Amino acid sequence: MTNDTNTITEDAQATSLSSPFIKELVKQWRAQDSHGAWDKKSNHDLIAPYIITKEMRRSLPIISDVDARTLQRIELFYNAVSMSIEQRTGVTAVPIIKMHHEGFGRLVLIAGRLVIHSRTMRDAHRFGFESMEKLLAEGEQLVEAGVEMIRAFPDIVNYNA
Amino acid sequence: MTNDTNTITEDAQATSLSSPFIKELVKQWRAQDSHGAWDKKSNHDLIAPYIITKEMRRSLPIISDVDARTLQRIELFYNAVSMSIEQRTGVTAVPIIKMHHEGFGRLVLIAGRLVIHSRTMRDAHRFGFESMEKLLAEGEQLVEAGVEMIRAFPDIVNYNA
Repeated sequence: MTNDTNTITEDAQATSLSSPFIKELVKQWRAQDSHGAWDKKSNHDLIAPYIITKEMRRSLPIISDVDARTLQRIELFYNAVSMSIEQRTGVTAVPIIKMHHEGFGRLVLIAGRLVIHSRTMRDAHRFGFESMEKLLAEGEQLVEAGVEMIRAFPDIVNYNA
Repeated sequence: MTNDTNTITEDAQATSLSSPFIKELVKQWRAQDSHGAWDKKSNHDLIAPYIITKEMRRSLPIISDVDARTLQRIELFYNAVSMSIEQRTGVTAVPIIKMHHEGFGRLVLIAGRLVIHSRTMRDAHRFGFESMEKLLAEGEQLVEAGVEMIRAFPDIVNYNA
């Protein structure tokens, strides 16, 4: 099963897995595992639940409340974004996620008095990415945008009321 | 039962009840009552659960999760703050409250990309005020501070990413 297409996909996955953002995401998951239950899980397997293909999306119901596992997936993704931003700027970024009923919610990333990222969620049930590369690209883009916001408005970040 | 002290207290309560902030708070509560179950409740009775004296505070346990009624009390208070800010500035302010376990949580009031108010809660179970006047004073102070923040940083409020 090592035809050319598979080799390319595997290479791309390996590259993604060794990126700083995905490493941070893996660290967030390992930090949850206080009993070592996931010790034998590979890094890939740990974050595999983020990969939701189009076919999987279609089969996911969006009418019930978001379950704890999905919420954890969302929270740890934004924790990884926050930590990556902090590593690059030295500024603490905090995610605040407020889920309402049935997958509707709001997420903000805050640094001091600045909202560095704001997102309204309408289908949190389906929170995921089509591929490992897309997960990485989205994570990196959020980190980059967050770093830019912090550098653009240092007075608001450091504002003391 | 109308000695001087009581008369003064009643006067102060009447003044508080007719203030714009308390009127807004009452409106928030009436808006929850879609079935008219509270039609016969006076404005005073509607917001009486906010009044928590020192003696009451001491008797409130703070070891369990915050119940839905307490959370609603917190949410509607900050809704009233947000609406009052909006009325004075024309800017939409949004409260986001994230409760963790056992009364620990975080509240932010956001206008555009500006955090106009930020608060860490450590005993949400006891959310309340010693008297109607203190409820009013705290509400007005939050509104005033929010209006000032919005006026100080219009670029952040109106920032479009």
